[in-house]
Amino acid sequence: MQKYKVVIIGSGIAGMSAAIYLKRGGIEPVIIENNVPGGTLNVIPNIENYPGYINVSGPDLAMNIYNQVNNLNIKYIFRNIWKIDLEKKIIDDDIEFDYLIIATGRRHRLLNLDNEDKLLGRGISTCALCDGSFYKDKEVIVVGGGSSAVTESLYLAGICKKVTIIHRRDKFTAEDYLIEKVLNTKNIKIIYNTNIVSYNIKDEKIVSVTLDNKKKVKTKGVFLAIGSTPNSELFDVKKENDYIITDNNCKTNLDFVYAVGDVIKKNVYQLTTASGEGSIAASDIIRNDK
Amino acid sequence: MQKYKVVIIGSGIAGMSAAIYLKRGGIEPVIIENNVPGGTLNVIPNIENYPGYINVSGPDLAMNIYNQVNNLNIKYIFRNIWKIDLEKKIIDDDIEFDYLIIATGRRHRLLNLDNEDKLLGRGISTCALCDGSFYKDKEVIVVGGGSSAVTESLYLAGICKKVTIIHRRDKFTAEDYLIEKVLNTKNIKIIYNTNIVSYNIKDEKIVSVTLDNKKKVKTKGVFLAIGSTPNSELFDVKKENDYIITDNNCKTNLDFVYAVGDVIKKNVYQLTTASGEGSIAASDIIRNDK
Repeated sequence: MQKYKVVIIGSGIAGMSAAIYLKRGGIEPVIIENNVPGGTLNVIPNIENYPGYINVSGPDLAMNIYNQVNNLNIKYIFRNIWKIDLEKKIIDDDIEFDYLIIATGRRHRLLNLDNEDKLLGRGISTCALCDGSFYKDKEVIVVGGGSSAVTESLYLAGICKKVTIIHRRDKFTAEDYLIEKVLNTKNIKIIYNTNIVSYNIKDEKIVSVTLDNKKKVKTKGVFLAIGSTPNSELFDVKKENDYIITDNNCKTNLDFVYAVGDVIKKNVYQLTTASGEGSIAASDIIRNDK
Repeated sequence: MQKYKVVIIGSGIAGMSAAIYLKRGGIEPVIIENNVPGGTLNVIPNIENYPGYINVSGPDLAMNIYNQVNNLNIKYIFRNIWKIDLEKKIIDDDIEFDYLIIATGRRHRLLNLDNEDKLLGRGISTCALCDGSFYKDKEVIVVGGGSSAVTESLYLAGICKKVTIIHRRDKFTAEDYLIEKVLNTKNIKIIYNTNIVSYNIKDEKIVSVTLDNKKKVKTKGVFLAIGSTPNSELFDVKKENDYIITDNNCKTNLDFVYAVGDVIKKNVYQLTTASGEGSIAASDIIRNDK
């Protein structure tokens, strides 16, 4: 059994901010992560609203923060977590903690249609930045109408021959300047008030989708940008719609369990707010532990 | 009379973050500032806890964010503000607004001793980074026992011959690793449980201070790091100890007035939290204005 003062689960900007603050405050944290460092940062092509960078790619910012974590000699464990006993304060059967910071973020939603699982990563993607270049000069579809659907469409329009946005409502909910950009981009076509009902496959590859108005749209790739679900299943704390409820100090209903970033219920899901929450949780632990 | 949708007063990281989010959200903000851009950033020698930078000077980070603001063509007015009529939504007699974001930060406290005013900038300083180099290889005093006193002492120890910290209590309240650094720095001397009662002057220059135990300490310069007062006097909104009270959306008791950063009552006063608050206030205005 390995014992740590503070275990941070997740290495997005929220988790890494908490780690930086804890370490510099004299408390040794450990970050546990089952993926590349940076969390959601890794699926953001361009960031223009993180104060300090005119323009930075998500993966670059992720790597900068990860370097900062490394530079402070913060312990980083790469592994999956299977279960957490909050009563005994034990993760799986081998990690003990005094405080836990949940920074597990959110994951992309799927349409739950036939063959979707099989096509994921082979025609269906939830990450334009990761997979866009596979569709260079081809026709693709983006599903969704929020900020990420619009951002990803613009990104794909620069790579692909044509981008068709399929949106179930009659208008977008993204920032105005983004919507305007989309409306003014020649190789983006928008189909409003429509849903995909099936993926059509030939030789194990997607060739088109069928819409609920019976029409078919030819495509080589479908990018899903239809929202997210918080990664909160492992944690038996108070939630609302699966989002973890926290107080002003980012503390959950349990005295030794904090949650920060996209996994919590809040009004604004941004890098700025996530990094703020990381430092708030860390500061509270530092205060309480003295 | 010039009319603006949103007036942001103050250009620290909180105010500039709000501006960036508003502009990118399709709302034209204006920043009003009576000093260099960056607010408190300009008095922080080294920053190691702002996610994305292993190490950056406050003024450098300030300039990066200011460049980002400029790059978005955000209007920036350099001037003093004398009065604000919140009922009529008018600043002085010439600027009208729909929404106001207060981002005026805090200012340094003084000891309120004789001659302090005259000596400010000529022997007494509230900013080690700004004025430290004037005291190269000389003996200086730092007054205070918090994070900034400790940080500034370490900075000055690298420039000056000797740093004497005069602290009214028996221990520091800064982060552990900082305190340890101070205790291990050879040219830093600490005098606990003591206050300065007078500045002693010869030929219009400070030559020593007298302590409340009657002893004198020779010095060429005194750096005050004894806390701050929020710059909230102009604003007739709900406050506690002069700090502005805000809700989850950084809104004050008035529907069209927000406050962000060091001027508000909160638990954690950091760059991360200030930038988070800037984006929260902006997002709420964007939501409400649609």
